[in-house]
Amino acid sequence: MTDKKSVLRPVDDEARGIARDLLAKARFGALGVMLDGAPFVTRIAVNAEGSLISLVSTLSQHTAALKADPRCSLLIGEPGPKGDALTHARLTLQADAELVGRDDALRGRWLKAHPKAKLYIDFGDFGFVRFQVRGAFLNGGFGYACALSAEDLGL
Amino acid sequence: MTDKKSVLRPVDDEARGIARDLLAKARFGALGVMLDGAPFVTRIAVNAEGSLISLVSTLSQHTAALKADPRCSLLIGEPGPKGDALTHARLTLQADAELVGRDDALRGRWLKAHPKAKLYIDFGDFGFVRFQVRGAFLNGGFGYACALSAEDLGL
Repeated sequence: MTDKKSVLRPVDDEARGIARDLLAKARFGALGVMLDGAPFVTRIAVNAEGSLISLVSTLSQHTAALKADPRCSLLIGEPGPKGDALTHARLTLQADAELVGRDDALRGRWLKAHPKAKLYIDFGDFGFVRFQVRGAFLNGGFGYACALSAEDLGL
Repeated sequence: MTDKKSVLRPVDDEARGIARDLLAKARFGALGVMLDGAPFVTRIAVNAEGSLISLVSTLSQHTAALKADPRCSLLIGEPGPKGDALTHARLTLQADAELVGRDDALRGRWLKAHPKAKLYIDFGDFGFVRFQVRGAFLNGGFGYACALSAEDLGL
């Protein structure tokens, strides 16, 4: 087992650009939370314009898990239907989730990014989560990985 | 907060069919592991014909994390580029990972499912992981969620 540092590149403007582009385009991601002491991964919708947020139902297991332990991780960047998924860039975020609940400014922003959410955004069990990013790993394909800070991502 | 059981349907053959179909089509997934006491989600390639396996590099953070703690979760089922990602079916698996290393039978099976992996499958740092599924949650879109066993999934 080689030290993991040996496979990480130093972060540079190219990596920052790829990661910011993945964030700007992200409409959903895979959220990892702690559930009963083990990881649990579900799909959530996201928006990362300025801050990283999600609209979640309090009835969902991931929301209950985030209430109990805010530490989480979010994978964004979709490979598309063709080719080797591992050659497509993706970004792993490490974050702490803050349950915001209802918020008019976030509601407007969310509906602009996710217009179909109008069908359920006002249901009583829905509210916003804000992710405070602690750090991130960009995997840009084989042999291209680096660690980034929230500042590198503009978050 | 409503008890989570109230939003889960009883498992039936329709749910088993949707979940098995997602598994049969799955080429990659979002793997959640424990890293430094917190969740960490990365993309891995998968194959679920008979058993759920992945080809991973021992240089990757997730492989090191699985060595330290085999409890993990895997999200499969991709939403595609259009519409609301939350209306597309997806499956959360809860599993324990077993690091198998090199294995000729798995190598042949993997190359049939992932022919482009021939570029790296024989690199010294690559080996197989087998996931022993403990349970799963199918989310078939709003208002359609149920818990499944490994047996329900044919795994």
